[in-house]
Amino acid sequence: MITSTSNARIKRLVNLKKKRKLRDEGSIFLVEGIRMFREVPLDKLKEVYVSESFYKKEKDTVKEVLKDSKVRVEELTDTVFAHASDTKTPQGILCVVEQMNHEINELTSAKCPLIMVLDHLQDPGNLGTILRTAEGAGVTGILMDRECVDVYNPKTIRSTMGSIYRMPFVYVEDLGKGIQDLKDKGITTYAAHLEGTNSYDEEDLTNPCAFLIGNEGNGLRREIADMADCYVKIPMLGQVESLNAAIASSVLMFEAARQRRKV
Amino acid sequence: MITSTSNARIKRLVNLKKKRKLRDEGSIFLVEGIRMFREVPLDKLKEVYVSESFYKKEKDTVKEVLKDSKVRVEELTDTVFAHASDTKTPQGILCVVEQMNHEINELTSAKCPLIMVLDHLQDPGNLGTILRTAEGAGVTGILMDRECVDVYNPKTIRSTMGSIYRMPFVYVEDLGKGIQDLKDKGITTYAAHLEGTNSYDEEDLTNPCAFLIGNEGNGLRREIADMADCYVKIPMLGQVESLNAAIASSVLMFEAARQRRKV
Repeated sequence: MITSTSNARIKRLVNLKKKRKLRDEGSIFLVEGIRMFREVPLDKLKEVYVSESFYKKEKDTVKEVLKDSKVRVEELTDTVFAHASDTKTPQGILCVVEQMNHEINELTSAKCPLIMVLDHLQDPGNLGTILRTAEGAGVTGILMDRECVDVYNPKTIRSTMGSIYRMPFVYVEDLGKGIQDLKDKGITTYAAHLEGTNSYDEEDLTNPCAFLIGNEGNGLRREIADMADCYVKIPMLGQVESLNAAIASSVLMFEAARQRRKV
Repeated sequence: MITSTSNARIKRLVNLKKKRKLRDEGSIFLVEGIRMFREVPLDKLKEVYVSESFYKKEKDTVKEVLKDSKVRVEELTDTVFAHASDTKTPQGILCVVEQMNHEINELTSAKCPLIMVLDHLQDPGNLGTILRTAEGAGVTGILMDRECVDVYNPKTIRSTMGSIYRMPFVYVEDLGKGIQDLKDKGITTYAAHLEGTNSYDEEDLTNPCAFLIGNEGNGLRREIADMADCYVKIPMLGQVESLNAAIASSVLMFEAARQRRKV
């Protein structure tokens, strides 16, 4: 049982929560809560920490999940656990997990690719919500530039509700080159843009396609938008100029899903 | 110029930011930022506070907006302004605004009502995002029970991006009675529900309709869901069980908007 917040392992957990650099160096990230623990791919699971009171109640559940794993459970006093946790009301279980390792081919080799391309997306909650919604809509993968927020940010992880384990995503140095790769593979690229002339629902989204989504404040960079085969808009009423990035993404993804159900 | 954070007016602003009770007693709320200031209905504007450095740059803009108003601008030192502000990087302008006052008739008397009914919605960001997206999708109003988060919560206000001024909303004591009122007016009510048999996009949403959206964690209360004319689901792929409440709302609202554009 770890009883002190100055324990070296606890200090490391706190740093892993805060620092992308440290996460990337170890190629690991943190997940919290019983659901994120239950859904973790066992071959990716490295360490498990529980609070004393959580473990008292849930020992059997934890043991059952870990029955084919060699990972040992480390107990923390409730106070120490609260210190390591990223949430105000911690559930009492926290894991260190190996980072996902997807290739761009995974995104494009699906039977009928549906890809979200994110340019400079900044909000951790938006990114997590996009991953979660993308899985539900049948998206085959997410392509991002390195200026996008870190997918392993604890807030992003939380918003994915487990989709982090299942939705393929790739960060690329040069997003323009990444988009060109998609186009070379016959994937039609749509820029979600206020200057779009075509309404998103008038496009045929049953063929391989990708949506380009820009930064929350500034939209798509011009040079990225210019690479798209087509600018599309989401027609808007009232005085609304734009939608939240996760909302716009969702409307587009579920329109593609809707059309694809009819085929 | 107010130079002290212990000034009574500053203390009041800080309390208005934190306390729903105080906002409701005065029938007022706070808005922050230049955009929220520009879009405020002048007859609702009660007080304007600016930071010294903001006012140096933007005095002309502020004067122009206020040219037909009797409201005086109160200057605060930057430090005092930061104390009163709800954001980490304050824009430098904050207003006290009179609360909106909508009637349920406003929601239902539209030519072809499209209404969002929110049951026990808890997240301030979700509520604000729903208001913003609702305006864009042509929703005619929002009906909520009193257990829903306060629409005048500063985080909600921020997420509305100005739609708070334009999207009619009503809180009711008895949501069941509110839903019955809608039904009595010939509005078809759809409960967004995991147990829905019909897919949302297979319903005719071009007639007067309302969507019932539940709490983030628990969904719709059974007695509320049971009042709906029809349960609808958003078909989901992968292992996703549910969508975020604002995302589910947006998918439904924009499907209604899509169908209505075709009529």
